[in-house]
Amino acid sequence: MARIVMKFGGTSMAGTERIRTVAKLVAREVAQGNEVAVVVSAMAGETDRLVNFCREANPRYDPAEYDVVVASGEQVTSGLLALTLQAMGTPARSWLGWQLPIRTEEVHARARIHEIETGALSAAMARGEVAVIPGFQGLMEDGRIATLGRGGSDTSAVAVAAAVKADRCDIYTDVDGVYTTDPRIEPKARRLARISFEEMLEMASLGAKVLQVRSVELAMVHKVRTFVRSSFEAPDAPGMGDFDNPPGTLICDEDEIVEQQVVTGIAYAKDEAQISLRRVEDRSVVPAGIFGPLAEAGINVDMIVQNISEDGKLTDMTFTVPSGDIDKALAALEKIKADIGFDMVQHDDGMSKVSVIGIGMRSHTGVAATAFKALAEKGINIRAITTSEIKISILIDGPYTELAVRTLHSVYGLDKQ
Amino acid sequence: MARIVMKFGGTSMAGTERIRTVAKLVAREVAQGNEVAVVVSAMAGETDRLVNFCREANPRYDPAEYDVVVASGEQVTSGLLALTLQAMGTPARSWLGWQLPIRTEEVHARARIHEIETGALSAAMARGEVAVIPGFQGLMEDGRIATLGRGGSDTSAVAVAAAVKADRCDIYTDVDGVYTTDPRIEPKARRLARISFEEMLEMASLGAKVLQVRSVELAMVHKVRTFVRSSFEAPDAPGMGDFDNPPGTLICDEDEIVEQQVVTGIAYAKDEAQISLRRVEDRSVVPAGIFGPLAEAGINVDMIVQNISEDGKLTDMTFTVPSGDIDKALAALEKIKADIGFDMVQHDDGMSKVSVIGIGMRSHTGVAATAFKALAEKGINIRAITTSEIKISILIDGPYTELAVRTLHSVYGLDKQ
Repeated sequence: MARIVMKFGGTSMAGTERIRTVAKLVAREVAQGNEVAVVVSAMAGETDRLVNFCREANPRYDPAEYDVVVASGEQVTSGLLALTLQAMGTPARSWLGWQLPIRTEEVHARARIHEIETGALSAAMARGEVAVIPGFQGLMEDGRIATLGRGGSDTSAVAVAAAVKADRCDIYTDVDGVYTTDPRIEPKARRLARISFEEMLEMASLGAKVLQVRSVELAMVHKVRTFVRSSFEAPDAPGMGDFDNPPGTLICDEDEIVEQQVVTGIAYAKDEAQISLRRVEDRSVVPAGIFGPLAEAGINVDMIVQNISEDGKLTDMTFTVPSGDIDKALAALEKIKADIGFDMVQHDDGMSKVSVIGIGMRSHTGVAATAFKALAEKGINIRAITTSEIKISILIDGPYTELAVRTLHSVYGLDKQ
Repeated sequence: MARIVMKFGGTSMAGTERIRTVAKLVAREVAQGNEVAVVVSAMAGETDRLVNFCREANPRYDPAEYDVVVASGEQVTSGLLALTLQAMGTPARSWLGWQLPIRTEEVHARARIHEIETGALSAAMARGEVAVIPGFQGLMEDGRIATLGRGGSDTSAVAVAAAVKADRCDIYTDVDGVYTTDPRIEPKARRLARISFEEMLEMASLGAKVLQVRSVELAMVHKVRTFVRSSFEAPDAPGMGDFDNPPGTLICDEDEIVEQQVVTGIAYAKDEAQISLRRVEDRSVVPAGIFGPLAEAGINVDMIVQNISEDGKLTDMTFTVPSGDIDKALAALEKIKADIGFDMVQHDDGMSKVSVIGIGMRSHTGVAATAFKALAEKGINIRAITTSEIKISILIDGPYTELAVRTLHSVYGLDKQ
């Protein structure tokens, strides 16, 4: 017997017929003797419909009322899944965010979960009742509904799993796991059986859109074993395969990964813009003077490269921002130019960032050198480099993205079984 | 300054454009210096959509989960109306049933309201904030959502008005008031400026589908002055008329009605079936022996006529049921025939009940005689008669319904100004 949290996205919940497939997957876990909680999204398209209503009602909408409106989508699907399970003879009930409650911080529309009260929930699960919980929502201290921001249902699921000390959190999604890279670019990409939390965090934040970044952070902190699997794996589909050993990717602690690969995956992000400030004064207050105003302007700065200045006085500073934010960023820089003191701003659009990720890098040398050599052989110009303990990110010209991804995927042997 | 509760139905809330019209009507009351709470229905068609989802999920649905699903419709419209009011510069916020809370009895899908906590609500209204409240829903003691049954938003509005001691409850609906009879049958029907609670109760339960019966009962008990008015009376419509003296019907205490009419209106109900039991033993336990089993079979018995028996031993008993229930009723009677002891069952389908309603009947004689004479002159056969203090109901053959309604409407002078 295990305690399991299952999460289903909007595509899986789009209509009563699909909800029946979800219910079969849930009932199958119950039949194995497991205690089950299910976290559900709204029907596909429903949240967009509700958000549009809010925009039409008030273009500058009050996020408190926005939350009241959009939280209704998951309320509907959680009631419907409970009804469907009951129809199959599986005891179930819905627990809305305010009923458990799932307590959040006092921020509407993008709240973080503070705490989940589990008394009633654990008792219901222990007596064999499936607990169906709407994702994406919680209760603020002032008694109003808060939502967690788009995609928040993944985070809800991991938070519930952490709260009830689940053995596993199964995220059913449109893809059947996490791949070594984007299969649309490299058909030889392979599904990973396991990936560590740290690696997944890099993969998620770099654009492998399998899981919301916050849910991975939460899973890492609480060590929630999170299994990404396909929702199309219907229980009555012909040749569905082994239920006890289904296809998917387990995101887990690195200790659970026996055969560590040096490199686990290649991620990429397109539409980056590079901005370089020349002859910046090399004083300790300068970085804050530059990036503070950019943050205030709502610009998400990604890579930052600053070289050590030769003379201790003047240096160059390069960073990247999303292409769409380039004008806003340049305007913000123009305002502070005199104060900070830099010579000129160079910028370039249409860049891509390609990243090599692997926890094994910690104990292996030469990983970066291999990447640089491989890209150089293909004539791909490297514009900037940043590294962390388990990641190397390389800024290149956009048109070379696919070539770079395929080259790196191959050079680290990721396309071999 | 007055304290006003406004209620808008599904047609008025069907989409953001119509909600804007509603918001203008609300803002107009606020501009007059009034304290306002608004009770809203779900968008037209939305509750049906949600009910269908429940049926598809589970034909014998758990009413607790049904309530979770269907209550979402009013949650959406209350958030949207609050947003729309804010966009117009009118402070507003939504208060969901569980937030106030509106406490209900422990019955899902058709709960009655027990109590509404008004502390936060009154404070918000007093500081000039419009309180937007989803109709049709409340909170049970066990912390789950309860709904009040279809059409329950009228009841919510009257209950809120009673709780906050409102000066008036304005029900905006598809019609512009209560008429002396159905204008589709008698084009000379006139809108009543005022009608007493008791009369409205008879009108409502007899098929004048303006207000839910329970809301009228509640209004009568708590003496909530309820104004039925048209939601098409848009604030910017050309020639909309006098805002301070709008068209509509005030349902109020009879003391407020200065010029009492003897007869206020003519109501009717089609598709009645008549059942007569002949030679029933005239014992005190017999009526319970007949109508108990019919009630248990879920059959709504309406008119009941029993004559005094000549010899104190055997009598005839006639009653009506909805036409659709006739077979069920006959089957139930067959089972108890031997026990109760009656001779034969006669039944007849396709009857109509026509009712003359008026609080003035109490102090006027000859009202019934006038009706009988008028109907006789038209050759309309009277099958059964029941009377109460303020109502005479006459059972006739269905095809004569329209003729009887027009005849009675005319004979009591209701078509004259």
